[in-house]
Amino acid sequence: MSEFANATIVREANIYFDGKVTSRTVLLEDGTKKTLGVMQAGDYEFNTDAKELMEVLAGEMTVLLPGEDDWQTYAAGQSYYVPANSSFKLKIDKIADYCCSYL
Amino acid sequence: MSEFANATIVREANIYFDGKVTSRTVLLEDGTKKTLGVMQAGDYEFNTDAKELMEVLAGEMTVLLPGEDDWQTYAAGQSYYVPANSSFKLKIDKIADYCCSYL
Repeated sequence: MSEFANATIVREANIYFDGKVTSRTVLLEDGTKKTLGVMQAGDYEFNTDAKELMEVLAGEMTVLLPGEDDWQTYAAGQSYYVPANSSFKLKIDKIADYCCSYL
Repeated sequence: MSEFANATIVREANIYFDGKVTSRTVLLEDGTKKTLGVMQAGDYEFNTDAKELMEVLAGEMTVLLPGEDDWQTYAAGQSYYVPANSSFKLKIDKIADYCCSYL
């Protein structure tokens, strides 16, 4: 368990894909932004603006990063970067809890 | 949109009912605790320790409170109290985004 202190948390969830992906926005003291989210089982594609660091907190994410030919599976405790202004695909088998940092 | 400032948020989600209900724990400066959660469609029953104030942020919750004979539906912007040391049942039709305050 870890936590973010002195943070501002937006109450309302961000809701995507009919609620199969939801997240909460967290703003840290240093001005950086993170989202803490949960993905239900399913296939998803997301676009990025900023570069993103995706940390898997629980479950697994199978990811196709831009420019890659192979899907990679990331388990709890693992993380990956997504380039700015790109898109990536995800397959979630059961559920994934994640922290996304906007870099 | 509203937010909690100067708060601590636990990174890892609380996961219930195989992930159909998930929440994040938020601790406020005054020591009070809240959870921000999402319920997918389904039927649920929860036990309380503390008295709870449940605020519906998006979607709807249909609720059977302890000692009541009738289910009541609460929409976004509405709220209800659940007594301490009790249990309550919920039916979620699509999705519900909520804020639970432990009183």
